[in-house]
Amino acid sequence: MTFDYAHQTDWAMTSGQHQSPIDIQTEHTQASQLSAISWRGFYQAQTITGEATTMKASGIGAAYLNDRDFNFQQIHFHTPAEHLIDGQAAPIEWHLVHRSATGQLAVVAVFGRIGKPNASLQGLLDQFTPQTSHELTTPVDLTELLPDTGTVYHYLGSLTTPPLSETVEWYVCADTVMIGEQQLATYQQLFAANNREIQPLNDRPIIAERF
Amino acid sequence: MTFDYAHQTDWAMTSGQHQSPIDIQTEHTQASQLSAISWRGFYQAQTITGEATTMKASGIGAAYLNDRDFNFQQIHFHTPAEHLIDGQAAPIEWHLVHRSATGQLAVVAVFGRIGKPNASLQGLLDQFTPQTSHELTTPVDLTELLPDTGTVYHYLGSLTTPPLSETVEWYVCADTVMIGEQQLATYQQLFAANNREIQPLNDRPIIAERF
Repeated sequence: MTFDYAHQTDWAMTSGQHQSPIDIQTEHTQASQLSAISWRGFYQAQTITGEATTMKASGIGAAYLNDRDFNFQQIHFHTPAEHLIDGQAAPIEWHLVHRSATGQLAVVAVFGRIGKPNASLQGLLDQFTPQTSHELTTPVDLTELLPDTGTVYHYLGSLTTPPLSETVEWYVCADTVMIGEQQLATYQQLFAANNREIQPLNDRPIIAERF
Repeated sequence: MTFDYAHQTDWAMTSGQHQSPIDIQTEHTQASQLSAISWRGFYQAQTITGEATTMKASGIGAAYLNDRDFNFQQIHFHTPAEHLIDGQAAPIEWHLVHRSATGQLAVVAVFGRIGKPNASLQGLLDQFTPQTSHELTTPVDLTELLPDTGTVYHYLGSLTTPPLSETVEWYVCADTVMIGEQQLATYQQLFAANNREIQPLNDRPIIAERF
């Protein structure tokens, strides 16, 4: 590539090759001993917002992600799941959005499966009002939405909604978390499908880490 | 922001707000106890390349950057320095480009000051040939180009040449490293000024870390 320091305003930025979500082909992942996620402190939702496309709850929480401090910012939901594992989609995926002191974004993605009802999800659904944002009169303990075992697929990608910024460390948990069939139905009655299409992996490695 | 899952090809990606280099205003940095850089293993240049705008040397080396494993890829030089500290430019800046297993790029930026000649830089200059790339007959120990004390300014930014991708963790070392006046003159005879213009910080925090 040639470029001229005398004409810097002509320089073009290239981006768009590291988008999310992706289909994680497990046979092409690379094993690592790195600690992906270590939850620390209590995850609690304090504010809930009905956006046009999803239910979002903000609050407190903290984790070590690859041994660095991150603060929890918000959780929101996608139905069906956005990430695929070997081409398979879970019925729902939630995103625990974190931020470090430098402003680095890191999202922990968790898949739900149908089973016993989930108390944390119920706490959110019980206090949700479409199209409004309000503080929760009863803050919701989010513990039941956090897996703590199994493989975590780590790769570098983007936000899955506009502005689609390629500034996200993804931690996609292989172990699923149970939610009730009625809870899923309730969410789906509130919101239409909101999964972004699968994006090309291109040259990105996917690292298989552990809790 | 509104967007429609039925028309995803209309979604626009926004970028360009997190570019490098920047002017680091030290009074606006935030102190942190995080370990910025821990050199591990031997840094050695094995191949040298005369690019159109800079001298680049590739080789081996490894560091913990914020406690994560990174491998050294290449070093190259900018005159005058690209980053500023409180508006001041050093006469030269070199970039130690590192990559993690996930493909994360991290660049350690080091400023030179005029003083006693630098043996590592001399080793590179002695074997450099413009416009060609060749393996070094005598691999060059890069140790004298690596600072190991002082403050390290850490922020999230971009490559400073096209494609300007916003995928770089920057570690800008405050402590300078001595190079000889004649060494700087030799480099400047080989290459015209190759510092990109200062870019807006926008909303990015700058963290003051330590070795």
